[in-house]
Amino acid sequence: MEKIIFGIDPGIADTGYGFIRVQGGNLECLDYGSIKTPAGQPLPERLQSLYQELRLLLEKYRPQVAAVEQLFFNKNVRTALIVGQARGVALLAVSQQGIPLLDFTPAQVKRAVSAYGQASKLQIQKMVKLILKLEEIPKPDDAADALAVAICGANQRQWR
Amino acid sequence: MEKIIFGIDPGIADTGYGFIRVQGGNLECLDYGSIKTPAGQPLPERLQSLYQELRLLLEKYRPQVAAVEQLFFNKNVRTALIVGQARGVALLAVSQQGIPLLDFTPAQVKRAVSAYGQASKLQIQKMVKLILKLEEIPKPDDAADALAVAICGANQRQWR
Repeated sequence: MEKIIFGIDPGIADTGYGFIRVQGGNLECLDYGSIKTPAGQPLPERLQSLYQELRLLLEKYRPQVAAVEQLFFNKNVRTALIVGQARGVALLAVSQQGIPLLDFTPAQVKRAVSAYGQASKLQIQKMVKLILKLEEIPKPDDAADALAVAICGANQRQWR
Repeated sequence: MEKIIFGIDPGIADTGYGFIRVQGGNLECLDYGSIKTPAGQPLPERLQSLYQELRLLLEKYRPQVAAVEQLFFNKNVRTALIVGQARGVALLAVSQQGIPLLDFTPAQVKRAVSAYGQASKLQIQKMVKLILKLEEIPKPDDAADALAVAICGANQRQWR
C-alpha cells in the first residue's frame, strides 16, 4: 500500500520540507525544498507566510503521516523560543490536515539513514541522496534534514 | 473613537486572554479568561485546540490591535521551546485577523498598570481590577496577565 510521508525541519527563516512516497520497500522522493520568510517582516507575518506555504504543500501532496525531529534542549534559550514559534505553526498545519505526527530524536534520524548514530552532516546528506536515488545532494541543509526525518518515518512500522 | 484591544499571554496548558474596549480615556473589560488544553493530548492537537479557541474569540470581539509580552530569555530552554510553540500559534491567529501586534517588555507592562516597574504580581492584579472596575481580581493569573498587557497596549499612542 502506498503512503506519502511529510518530513519537516521547522525554523523562522528557513523551514525544510520533504515528501517521500513509500510503496512496498521502495522510497521515492516527490519533492523537497525550503520555505523562506523575509527577515525584514514582522514575526506574525513571517509565521503566516510559513503557515500558508505549508498548507499549500499539504494540500498538494496529501501525506498520510508527518515526521519531525524532537525538540532538543541543547540549544540556547533565544534559539529555542524562536524555533519553538515556527514549530508550533508547523505542528498546527499538520494537525489540521488530520494526520499523525511522528517525532524522532536526532540519533534515531541518523541511524535511519546511516545505520549508525554518529554520522556527520555530509554523510547523512550523501545517504539521503543514495536512498532516494537523487541526482545530487539535496540543498539547502534544512531540506536534506527534512528528507532524512521523512526516511526515518518511512522506516517506522507504528503507522503502517 | 472606539478601539478593542486583545491582550494575550500564551502557553500550552493555559493561554490567558483579555479584551478591553477603549473609548476616549475610558477602559472597559469585555471579556477575559484562560484557554486550557488537556495534558493527555498530543501536542499538535493541543495547538489546534488553542488555535481554534483563539480564532473564535477573535471572530467574536474583532479587536483592532493585539498586545503580547516580549519573549524573555531568563527561562530555561525546555520552557522556552514549549512556550514558543504556543506563542507561534497565537501570533499566527492574530496575523490572520489582519491586526497589528504590539509587544512589550514585562517592565513596560508593570509600569502601564502600576506606575512603577517593580510591582508584585498581586499588586499588578489589584491594579488591573481597579483600572477595569472589575468586581474581583481576575483569575486565573494568566488571564490577569493578559488584561495587564492589553491595558499596556491601550496606553500606547502608536496605533491610535
